[in-house]
Amino acid sequence: MIQTTRYNVQTLTTFVEQLFMKAGADVEVAQVVTRVLLEGELLGHRTHGLNLVSRYIDGVLSGQVKARAQALEQVADSGVSSLFDGHYVLGPYCVSRALDCAAAGATKQGIGIAVVRRAAHIGCLAAYLKPYTDQGLLAIVYSSDPSVGLVCAHGGIDPVYTPNPIAAGIPTQGEPILLDVSMSTVTLGLVGQCRDAGRRLPHPVLVSNEGQLSDDPGDFFTRPQGSILPLGGQAFGHKGFALALLVEALTSGLAGHGRKDAPDQWGASATALVIDPRMFGGLEAFLDETSFLGGLVLASRPLDPERPVRLPGQAGLALRRQAVEQGVSLSPQLIADLERVAGQLQLPGLFQ
Amino acid sequence: MIQTTRYNVQTLTTFVEQLFMKAGADVEVAQVVTRVLLEGELLGHRTHGLNLVSRYIDGVLSGQVKARAQALEQVADSGVSSLFDGHYVLGPYCVSRALDCAAAGATKQGIGIAVVRRAAHIGCLAAYLKPYTDQGLLAIVYSSDPSVGLVCAHGGIDPVYTPNPIAAGIPTQGEPILLDVSMSTVTLGLVGQCRDAGRRLPHPVLVSNEGQLSDDPGDFFTRPQGSILPLGGQAFGHKGFALALLVEALTSGLAGHGRKDAPDQWGASATALVIDPRMFGGLEAFLDETSFLGGLVLASRPLDPERPVRLPGQAGLALRRQAVEQGVSLSPQLIADLERVAGQLQLPGLFQ
Repeated sequence: MIQTTRYNVQTLTTFVEQLFMKAGADVEVAQVVTRVLLEGELLGHRTHGLNLVSRYIDGVLSGQVKARAQALEQVADSGVSSLFDGHYVLGPYCVSRALDCAAAGATKQGIGIAVVRRAAHIGCLAAYLKPYTDQGLLAIVYSSDPSVGLVCAHGGIDPVYTPNPIAAGIPTQGEPILLDVSMSTVTLGLVGQCRDAGRRLPHPVLVSNEGQLSDDPGDFFTRPQGSILPLGGQAFGHKGFALALLVEALTSGLAGHGRKDAPDQWGASATALVIDPRMFGGLEAFLDETSFLGGLVLASRPLDPERPVRLPGQAGLALRRQAVEQGVSLSPQLIADLERVAGQLQLPGLFQ
Repeated sequence: MIQTTRYNVQTLTTFVEQLFMKAGADVEVAQVVTRVLLEGELLGHRTHGLNLVSRYIDGVLSGQVKARAQALEQVADSGVSSLFDGHYVLGPYCVSRALDCAAAGATKQGIGIAVVRRAAHIGCLAAYLKPYTDQGLLAIVYSSDPSVGLVCAHGGIDPVYTPNPIAAGIPTQGEPILLDVSMSTVTLGLVGQCRDAGRRLPHPVLVSNEGQLSDDPGDFFTRPQGSILPLGGQAFGHKGFALALLVEALTSGLAGHGRKDAPDQWGASATALVIDPRMFGGLEAFLDETSFLGGLVLASRPLDPERPVRLPGQAGLALRRQAVEQGVSLSPQLIADLERVAGQLQLPGLFQ
């Protein structure tokens, strides 16, 4: 019999915050990073949730990742547009500060944008959005990593850029629409999972370093490395490719720090864009429209009668509700991992 | 022997401007609309170029489309964010004014956004961008049409929304990157062209009104109508679908006018977003980065040796250069169409 332990959200929050603080983070940084990672966990993004805690803390302890709020430097500020240099501060803190800054601009003048260069790993973009949609704001996050190339140009063989996700939180009268999609067919995470499981990918979305289309993860992990096809695949990959270039421009382009600088440390360029519908056609009209559209979508007849049509984020928000009400279930492996970190930091474990 | 007549850009400009003015457009409106339609023609978007002139003028003459600058109403303005009600003024004028307004905000504070509701037909989004990239600005245009449903939700059968394009102009040290991509697999234009030519679509990107995937345009033009699959198709359509919802929120949502209002007249919701890199990491660093990235793309080994990797907009800009230098060649059908309109307005034709 497998026993599943469910943890209260508040218990987990306090536990993880203390890990970060003991590792050297400011209270504010620890709180923000914990909230974002736990939110990823609650929304069901297990690979971008609490399993990142140990990796982040290892980064802080090794000195590669910074955990002080004051290390995040605001380089430019016009009232609605800002540039931050993250100097490799914990990514969730950098992105949250950027979103807060963009939201302040949006509340004042309808739109705000903040760009961060050299953030440490930023986790799951979907995990950042709900605090803003709860305020009736439309929030968008774009990211890329100029130290990494995984995805090929449309019609090309060589890996040039990253999956470059676009995430957005769209408020409605009910739950928000939360989308988080990469501009590549698949992410590196999925390719790695398939390799580890000895499986092929569900579709031939890889290009070997010799230019053969493939569904074999082995064709990606070669030297030189293979590539992932852009969103749209062979037939419509010019679209995903074009959008990925736009994401590069909005992130590393505006950041003034990108592939041209050949950074040798993993670090994200991230851009937060927040819009306040109150300064346009009004919040009520906005919510009426997004809710009406959501209703049209949910009323669609499904292609497969067993799989009703859903809105982006709907499944994650259902998981989130369940976890908040019933507690968060963690895998034995994750619990052991968190206990290890607590021991290393001479803090009591989750059970103590 | 087929004789191709090439027309000088200035000759065409003057001719088309006079058509619009005689039809009742203000000088400013005539100039802007002519510039945008001609730019679409120059970039090779023949279906969204000068062939729209007669349709637009018919709309103006029938009273359904307005041609006076003062009919375009600015409803809100914060300095960086604006809302316009187009009241069905000629779309290229509405979108150009929105872009100018957003560009003014960007120049002052780094970013500007302007939303237009109820613009008449807006043509080809790629045709709007170059004036802004020429100033070193990053310009993005989103659009949807709340009176039309063509594309299904991911996993759904029924048509819910429009192809919802995203277009962007990204300045580089050389020619700009110009992208203009719909969030559906294909556009209605292509489905119609295949029907007219008696051809099947190159991929099964349609869903019949009974839920069968199809490449037969006849399965789209039924009652009730079929649907077009979102970008990403069956495997990855959740991504195109999610991005299309974001475009709906950015356009009709912010506009406060959308599907909830069940408009019975074709009319676009369009949003212009302009960003000035000078207010972030600097124009030089931006151009260095986008040019470096463009260089990586162009240096990619091609999957097909006969088809070198290209940047979005590269082919269109080459056509544009050729047309500016050697004159614009128009099809006999288009010439006849323009002559008809000139005759109807009692103006001399192109040859006179």
